[in-house]
Order: sequence, then C-alpha cells, then structure tokens
Amino acid sequence: GGFQVQLYESREDIRKAKIVRGRSINLALSHRGREALKHIGMEEKIVSKGIPMKARMIHSLSGKRSPIPYGKKDQYILSVDRANLNKELLTGREKYSTTAITCISFQVILCFSYTPGGEEVQVNADFVVGCDGAFSVVRRQFLRQSRFNYSQTYIPHGYMELTMPPLDGQFALAPNFLHIWPRNTFMMIALPNLDKTFTCTLFMPFDEFDKITTGEQVLDLFQTYFPDAVPLIGADALKRDYFRLPAQAMVSVKCSPYHIGDSCVLMGDAAHAMVPFYGQGMNAGFEDCLVFDELMDQLNDDFGAVLPEFSRVRVPDAQAIVDLAMYNYIEMRAHVNSRWFRFRKHLDNFLHFLMPTTMIPLYTMVTFTRTRYHEALKRWHWQNKVGIRCFKFT
Amino acid sequence: GGFQVQLYESREDIRKAKIVRGRSINLALSHRGREALKHIGMEEKIVSKGIPMKARMIHSLSGKRSPIPYGKKDQYILSVDRANLNKELLTGREKYSTTAITCISFQVILCFSYTPGGEEVQVNADFVVGCDGAFSVVRRQFLRQSRFNYSQTYIPHGYMELTMPPLDGQFALAPNFLHIWPRNTFMMIALPNLDKTFTCTLFMPFDEFDKITTGEQVLDLFQTYFPDAVPLIGADALKRDYFRLPAQAMVSVKCSPYHIGDSCVLMGDAAHAMVPFYGQGMNAGFEDCLVFDELMDQLNDDFGAVLPEFSRVRVPDAQAIVDLAMYNYIEMRAHVNSRWFRFRKHLDNFLHFLMPTTMIPLYTMVTFTRTRYHEALKRWHWQNKVGIRCFKFT
Repeated sequence: GGFQVQLYESREDIRKAKIVRGRSINLALSHRGREALKHIGMEEKIVSKGIPMKARMIHSLSGKRSPIPYGKKDQYILSVDRANLNKELLTGREKYSTTAITCISFQVILCFSYTPGGEEVQVNADFVVGCDGAFSVVRRQFLRQSRFNYSQTYIPHGYMELTMPPLDGQFALAPNFLHIWPRNTFMMIALPNLDKTFTCTLFMPFDEFDKITTGEQVLDLFQTYFPDAVPLIGADALKRDYFRLPAQAMVSVKCSPYHIGDSCVLMGDAAHAMVPFYGQGMNAGFEDCLVFDELMDQLNDDFGAVLPEFSRVRVPDAQAIVDLAMYNYIEMRAHVNSRWFRFRKHLDNFLHFLMPTTMIPLYTMVTFTRTRYHEALKRWHWQNKVGIRCFKFT
Repeated sequence: GGFQVQLYESREDIRKAKIVRGRSINLALSHRGREALKHIGMEEKIVSKGIPMKARMIHSLSGKRSPIPYGKKDQYILSVDRANLNKELLTGREKYSTTAITCISFQVILCFSYTPGGEEVQVNADFVVGCDGAFSVVRRQFLRQSRFNYSQTYIPHGYMELTMPPLDGQFALAPNFLHIWPRNTFMMIALPNLDKTFTCTLFMPFDEFDKITTGEQVLDLFQTYFPDAVPLIGADALKRDYFRLPAQAMVSVKCSPYHIGDSCVLMGDAAHAMVPFYGQGMNAGFEDCLVFDELMDQLNDDFGAVLPEFSRVRVPDAQAIVDLAMYNYIEMRAHVNSRWFRFRKHLDNFLHFLMPTTMIPLYTMVTFTRTRYHEALKRWHWQNKVGIRCFKFT
C-alpha cells in the first residue's frame, strides 16, 4: 500500500472511444481471473454482466448439436465483454489518473511521446509495470538486457470475427454455451453477448483466407463447413462483413526473466501472450496480479526481493499455459472434428469416473482451480501415462 | 554479377585494429565453410594458415590422453585465426569499399550513424544483406514486421578464453588435435594457433564463475578439474588472466523468414546464432552465401524469387544445426565425461563398421559433407532408432 500510481495507456480512453477494430469482442473469464477480481472487490460487478457458459455445444456438419459440459454441474466459464470489462476496471481504479499516450521507448527512466502533438515527454518513475500487451514496448527494452530469453511464434492460422444477430429478439442459438464448429483445420466458435448477439470467430489458415476474394466464395465456404450458421448470420451479412477487416494474426510469446533489477516487471500478454485455444489469456494475466500481490505481502513490499521471486515462480507457470494453448492449437489443427471431440471427452470422463481424485481432467485443473499451471501440466503428463495403462488393462 | 556493393562494418577495420576483446580467437573450419571459400577462390589462402585437427584429444582427470578421430584418416577440421580470416576476406574483396559505421537503425531505407562524430547519415540501398551477427540491428527491424518468428535463448553457461603459451618454443600439447577436458558441467577445450600457443576455452555455469573471486580459487578449480593443464598454462598466468574479462554469454537465435520482400535478407549469425558446441557457426554462415549464390544462378538474379526461396530452403537447415548445437550442449552438460565420450564414439564406429553406407555418423554428415543439415538430423533420428534396434538384437 501507499504507492503513488500513474496509469499510461496508448489507446484512447475506452470509455470515450468508438468500437476498437480488430480486437476480440468477448473474453472467457474463469476461476483464476475471478479470484483476482474478487481480490480487488470487483468480481460481482463483472460476473453480473457476464454470460455463463456451462458447456461447449458441438455443431456437427450435419447440423447435429451435442453439449459437452465444462466440468461438474455448477462449473461454468463466463463470456464477458472486453469493452465493458475495461471500462469497469478503469472506473473502479479511478484514483489512478490515466493519460492516453503512445510509449515510443522505455529506459529505466521512462520516455514517452504523447500521441496528438507528437512531442516527446520524459516521465520519471521508481518502478514500472509493463502490461502493454503482446507487442509490448516495455519488453523491447528487455531485449537489450544481457541474457534475456525471448521467443515470438506466429501460427499459420488467422482469425476473423463476425456477428450473429438476435433472431426474433432472442439469442439465435442456445445462449449458455460456447458453440464450436470443429472441422479440423477450419474452425468456428461463437460466444454470447448481453445484447443477444453472438460473436462468431472463424479460424482458418492465412492461405485459405487469401484464396477467398468474392462474396460467393465466402458463402461457399460457409455452406460447405458451417451450413447451419449461414441462415443465422445471414448470407448478405456474411458476404459483406467478411471483407470488413483482414484476418488477424495470432502470436505466442514466451520470455524470461520478467523483471529488470528492482525497477521493472512485465505482466499479462507483455510477459506471455498465447494463442486463444485454451481461453486462459486474460485469466493468466489477472492471476499474475494476484501472484504478485501475494509475494508483495510475503516479502514486505520489497521490490528487490519480490521481482526475482515473481520471475522464478511465474515464468514456468506462464510457459506451461502458453504451451498448453499451443498444444491445443496443434491438436485441433491435426484431427479435431465433432466425433473426436465427443470421444476424447468421454474417455476423460470415464477415467475421472473410475478414479475421481487422481484423474482430474487437465481442463478442470486449468479452468476451475488455481493449481499452478506447470503442476497441472505435470500431473496431466503423469495421468496420460497412467490413463493409457489403465485403459489397456480394462 | 554486375551489382554495386557497399560494405558497412560497425567495428573498426580489423586490419588496423588492436586485438578485439571478448570474441573467440579461433574458429573451426570444415567442409561447408571450405566449399564456400573455394567458390570465391580463397580456400587455399585460408587453409594454408589453418592448423589441421585430425582428432579430438580427450584428457581424463588422471591425465590420460585418448585421441578420437573426427572421421576417416584423411578427414580433419581446421583451427583458423578469426582475425586473419577477417583480414583475408576484406582484402580479397577490396573492390568493395568499407566504411566503419555503427548501424543504429534500419528501415528499408538504411539509416546509419557514423561512430566518431555521431552524426546520422542516411544511406539508400536497393537491397540489403544483414550479416551483422547474433545481435543484428538489421534483424531488429524484422521484429516490427508482421508474422516474424523469433527466439533468442541464453544458456546458463558462460565461457572464458585463456592462453597456453609455447613450451620450449614448441606447442605445449600435440598440435593437430582439438583438446577436450570433459567434466560434465565443467568443460575446457583448446585449439592450436599458428604462433604455437593454444587458446583454451573454459565453459562453466555463470553461477560457478560468480563463486570464484580470488586467484587461489582459480587455481583450486583448475587443480580439481584440469590438473594437467595447470603447469602448461602456468599458475601465475591463470590467477591473472582469469580476471581480465568477465565470462561471456552464449546465445542461440532462431528466426523465420530471413527476408523482407525483395529488398532485405539475413545471413550468418544474424539469421541463426548457435552455441559453439558443434563447431558449425562459421561454416553454416559461409554455406548461407553458397546456397544464396546457387539460388541466384538458378533464378536469374531475381531477388523477388530468390529471397522467398532462400527462406524456404535455408530456415529448416539452419534451425536443425542450431538445435543440434543446443542438443550437444544439453547432452554434454548432463553426462559427458571422458568415459562416455569414448564409449559413444565406439558405439557409432561399431554401427558404421557393420553398415558403412546406411549408418553414417551424424558428425560426419554435418562436418564433412554438404548433406542438408535438416536431412542429416532426420537421418540421425532414423539411425538412432534402427541402431538401437540392431544393438538389441546383436
């Protein structure tokens, strides 16, 4: 406590801004993110405006829909609106003043340039928290430090968001689900919004995006792979909206350490951007804050002790979830269709049913507990070995 | 042909400079590097000033020395002097003018600043080849491009170079060997120089380097791990030279693609820095030039075609050798001592003896052929499987 905090944001104040293009509209909130929000007394405010999703709803090519629960009956994840979440967090933290700036460079003395006029302004700070996202400018300075490990990996898929409007004033699909159209290398998902629309996200290799240049080709694609979604999004909307924005890239970022001396630390996507196939990006970022806060308490707010410890503890956990998200991407790309999805889930459930305390599904550990990510990954490797053996002998 | 070439170098002209500190003194030249030198008519000039090393000489803790040949009788690698090599290459290419500059930033229009006065000078170029090493400034611009994959990984070991003087006017150790003192996590190697000195390189975890603060501790370390080297380097020299320069870091860099449009390409360490445990760093860089030149011939000097093809062909090969060098590091760190070294080599030779055409040792493929690195790696994976099976059934 007792720190004087100044918040710098390169984007326009989201409370005043028009819709931000090219950034995902809704986010999946689960246990880790909620615990962090609870810690600052904001869980209820956010959760009350989220839409619970209790299961995935798998859409097969024939139009068949099969729900696959995320966990037990009372376990669900939430679809939350990115803009609203940002607004609430900014307003809740109003005691910090916010300045819209573009950080052009960062030394241990901060050096900013304000966007409008372009004049350069130097800002001095004792301590800097770099939460400036996957393309972090603060992190760029880390690259000049000795022995900083860093990797950024782009996947061959891009994504594009499309809106599915309400149907007769109601959700066009069952609202309390994360809808999935798994078609191996092509995939679409849909998350519900408070205004009864769904945000559909189409994942496709960039090569395939590039091939499609006319509205008719868009329609063909959807008729071939996602026929039940065509009347719900609307043929005309599809033909039009597909060309609004180019497909967006997805990047996976790992680095270590997360700190420089006792004066700077990276958190969130700046420290560990991940592909969106585990729904943990925001949750991992929020959990960073919680872990950092726990260390601040344990180590009496001594940055010189907290920062190395934060790197030591958090790097393996963040790298585990970045890897898991990438693993899900690779697995999905290789052989995920609706039949596989159901089989795999039933196998996991069957093993969990046989050995409820030892065989906790990986998804459950990641999504509904605060089991450290790297421990979840380790247990999963172990379970896979044991599980396969059980399966052989039963 | 017919290109107007300008060479920019951030370091002082090596032909006029005093000794450059902190950079390795000698380099291992083998087949790939020689082929590239041959291509520009400089092989003989360089080879004549290199010292052939026909075998490793393994020094056990007890002082026992066991040679392990690199290949067949006529196969050897060369210890070449970095400074001399650079001088010869600069002089051989004298038609290109050289300017000592420090590249501070790079756009598709080059933007340099001259070192002495610090004034900034813009240089226009149609095409830029970035060969500016592991910490490439040209590559930094690639990081701003969309979908550029990049990783830099520092290993926990550092290295330090020490000189072993001549003994009674002769080499203190047998000259035509690469001497190795393998002690698991500690290791020393020594390469011969034309002036009858050896350059010894000590590899140790930074943690261990940090522990040593007095001359007596240096001596203890060497008495414990490298006792036969102590009288040859000299106790006083050891105590003094150890503290001349801090231990240097080693970084592994992978990236892709290597080009931007038809106007820029990365080569050498700028594209693929590797840890020095396979002796291929320079050879891989020289082979880049050869591969590029071959593509220029095939594709009629059309940069628009050559550059994407260079990335397509060269990225998997460079990543394979970067990985192999890292694999050697990890293997060495885990369990390489003199006994292991001899056993492993004998196993490889035994398999090669049984099946001379199919079981070509990996080291031979990498060092004495131009088998594409990624193919050597693939064959090796395959051989390991078959080899283990053969071994089980014999």
